[in-house]
Amino acid sequence: MASSGYDFDLFVIGGGSGGVRAARKTAALGQKVAIAEEYRFGGTCVIRGCVPKKLMVYASHFAEDFEDAKGFGWTLGEPSFDWSELIAAKDREIERLEAIYARNVENAGAEILKSRAVLESPHEIRLLATDKVVTAERIVLAAGGRANPFPGLPGAEHCITSNEAFHLKRLPEKIVILGGGYIAIEFAHIFNGLGSEVTLVYRGQRVLQGFDDDLRDALQASMVAKGIRVLTEDTIVQVDQKADGRFQAHLKGGGLLDADEVMLAVGRMPNTIDLGCEKAGVELDEKGAVKVDDYSKTTADNIWALGDITNRVQLTPVAIHEAMCFVDTVYRDRPTKPDLDDIPTAVFSQPEIGTVGLTEAEAAKAFDEVEVYRTTFRPMRNTVSGRQDRTLMKLLVDSASRRVVGAHLFGPDSAETVQILGVCVKGRLTKDVFDRTMALHPSAAEELVTLYEPSYRLRSGQRVDG
Amino acid sequence: MASSGYDFDLFVIGGGSGGVRAARKTAALGQKVAIAEEYRFGGTCVIRGCVPKKLMVYASHFAEDFEDAKGFGWTLGEPSFDWSELIAAKDREIERLEAIYARNVENAGAEILKSRAVLESPHEIRLLATDKVVTAERIVLAAGGRANPFPGLPGAEHCITSNEAFHLKRLPEKIVILGGGYIAIEFAHIFNGLGSEVTLVYRGQRVLQGFDDDLRDALQASMVAKGIRVLTEDTIVQVDQKADGRFQAHLKGGGLLDADEVMLAVGRMPNTIDLGCEKAGVELDEKGAVKVDDYSKTTADNIWALGDITNRVQLTPVAIHEAMCFVDTVYRDRPTKPDLDDIPTAVFSQPEIGTVGLTEAEAAKAFDEVEVYRTTFRPMRNTVSGRQDRTLMKLLVDSASRRVVGAHLFGPDSAETVQILGVCVKGRLTKDVFDRTMALHPSAAEELVTLYEPSYRLRSGQRVDG
Repeated sequence: MASSGYDFDLFVIGGGSGGVRAARKTAALGQKVAIAEEYRFGGTCVIRGCVPKKLMVYASHFAEDFEDAKGFGWTLGEPSFDWSELIAAKDREIERLEAIYARNVENAGAEILKSRAVLESPHEIRLLATDKVVTAERIVLAAGGRANPFPGLPGAEHCITSNEAFHLKRLPEKIVILGGGYIAIEFAHIFNGLGSEVTLVYRGQRVLQGFDDDLRDALQASMVAKGIRVLTEDTIVQVDQKADGRFQAHLKGGGLLDADEVMLAVGRMPNTIDLGCEKAGVELDEKGAVKVDDYSKTTADNIWALGDITNRVQLTPVAIHEAMCFVDTVYRDRPTKPDLDDIPTAVFSQPEIGTVGLTEAEAAKAFDEVEVYRTTFRPMRNTVSGRQDRTLMKLLVDSASRRVVGAHLFGPDSAETVQILGVCVKGRLTKDVFDRTMALHPSAAEELVTLYEPSYRLRSGQRVDG
Repeated sequence: MASSGYDFDLFVIGGGSGGVRAARKTAALGQKVAIAEEYRFGGTCVIRGCVPKKLMVYASHFAEDFEDAKGFGWTLGEPSFDWSELIAAKDREIERLEAIYARNVENAGAEILKSRAVLESPHEIRLLATDKVVTAERIVLAAGGRANPFPGLPGAEHCITSNEAFHLKRLPEKIVILGGGYIAIEFAHIFNGLGSEVTLVYRGQRVLQGFDDDLRDALQASMVAKGIRVLTEDTIVQVDQKADGRFQAHLKGGGLLDADEVMLAVGRMPNTIDLGCEKAGVELDEKGAVKVDDYSKTTADNIWALGDITNRVQLTPVAIHEAMCFVDTVYRDRPTKPDLDDIPTAVFSQPEIGTVGLTEAEAAKAFDEVEVYRTTFRPMRNTVSGRQDRTLMKLLVDSASRRVVGAHLFGPDSAETVQILGVCVKGRLTKDVFDRTMALHPSAAEELVTLYEPSYRLRSGQRVDG
């Protein structure tokens, strides 16, 4: 029994990035903590998200390296790719990381429960593996989210989501991907790089809704140039399995697409089904996400929720940050709201997108006058490899304060560059500081400190040249 | 005749980055400008420095990509490399860039003189191609620098410098490189990657003098691990040519090294020999560099000097920046001193080094207490490729002001990352801003915003743990 009089001071449901961080940090403060995970430690990020995704991006990107090498004097035989070797290598790495996660929790002194856990009351949790009920003074819900299985689609049972994409028995010769968000985009590039024939179907006009429009245009044109078939303003209305085991997707526009796999990448949903929230006074919003206040507290006074289950910003570092703020607020008497402004993010398309702060459209609304600094260029490596990809870089500046309020990159290494641009935006640096910084030559990022004149301005949202 | 009463308002000697920028910007202001270049437009950077070097770095790096690909499921035949194809591809690209440089000068309205030009008096320049003397109100010396040919070394005539390394008829099977600076390091990696057997000989204990010691240690260990033989605390005292045309380097320590090429990378010298500086009242320092004041003015009242000929900081963006400051000061009535603080720089070793601000040793002297945040990790890609390279990242913080005063990186993409860290340092951002910035996962740079606790502190220059 814990000092609180319950079995545990803190019970965490979910062993992903947010739950593990909350459990570790709280246990390290001397609290009696348990953490329940029904599947594998590491959560979406480690098991079926960021990590395996990026490993597959690396794998697929080699195809371009092989082509590029020829321009530099290299001759290679025809490279061949073995899908099952990649999957095995990826699985080994994920097992290694999963073990590290579990060990970190144990070392911090938290008790690990390998079971699905559901709420029975504000202070009671049922462990389904043993059907035992335990009590806790406080509870953290960090059960994450999952790919939307799109049950309304006739034939959805024939389709895969990103979950299954990581474990396919063989590389599909032809794959159809439904969706225009970052998961759809990343998998389209992965399968294209590995040699699949990829068709992306998206109901909107342009992929990556919510991103800066220049990035969206550049990415979509680049995808087409790389041989990805992009069908916009259309959607899949039915999927059939054919006699040979393959599939056929019927498009709303009347088209028919044959494929070895049909992948649905139409958003993610919070894991609140059958979690017992209603038994504990934890309210959900209309999308099924746990409602939280500014300090991640749910509508139950002793229950908090962190990460994707709250559907705030579905990113690993955000879940970790929310966990750190929770520990500060609840166990260290330092009430701290998660700071969700100016989050730098990447899309691991090929090349990458990196973005932080306001889009041009948002900046145009937020400020009287905006200076847009914009450049496109062929990266140095491409001038010799012959690759036609162009890099796009864009800085948005509030004319009045001179602050850089947005940065948008499409090109190699954009994720790395935008991580540090995130520091600049967070530090409210002005464009003048960029101008005063010496260029580093030859680099791509030097373009960001040598954009001396705006490409154009926006006044009251209207474009003004010069 | 120009409005000044001379043949030209401004005469620029040297068509490199600094000279071209000064000529273009001044001509664009309506001045009558000439620029003389004896060899090829573009200077060291374009013709025999940054640009061809980086193209060769790209070429050599593919060797590691081919190895790494295997861990991700790829099988390739034995790759073969054709040196002459690389050299031809590089030369085509440099011709293209050279033409752009020349066109930019012409378009700005400056007159191009294809001739070596030397000073005859403070206002007179002799063009050696035609033996004609022209006059100018003002003169800019931007003749750059060159590799030190080390004439004191017996057998130096058998050796190459970086100049010749870009034009070798064939890839040397064995090459000995003398030097421990960035040029020696970069070529050691280039030749190693392309398949040469490389021996680096350096008189000091550790390569890259002046860089942060952690970087120096990590780089040197990495070079050895990659199969580059590094002989420190030794030097070459003589080079002989053998009967078969190959070479033998005699080491001070008694060793003998056979090689197809011996490359000297022992520093660079300003191009002031026979420039006629003494006829114009332009004084040189003890190293032969043109002495300048804070505004790049020489000891002659109407003559300025920019870039490597002044031996301030030998970097392309610095020469360009000095040119911009010169134009502001002289032609736009805005006296501007070049700002040479906190210059971000890279060494294109494999992986790269990126560095900005103070080294740990410098910070220890400059501040009462310094917090050192330091991490090393295997990049994600390497965990699957099996490559043993580790990334090193280090931030130095002045405890009193909380400012990040130095950043040092060794790992993939460090050049790109440190360009933007340069903006952070220039903007005097504190460590707290780094802490408040959301991580971008998975990236390498996210480590720089998640270093919450110092690895150790330095108080009055002494290391204190915790």
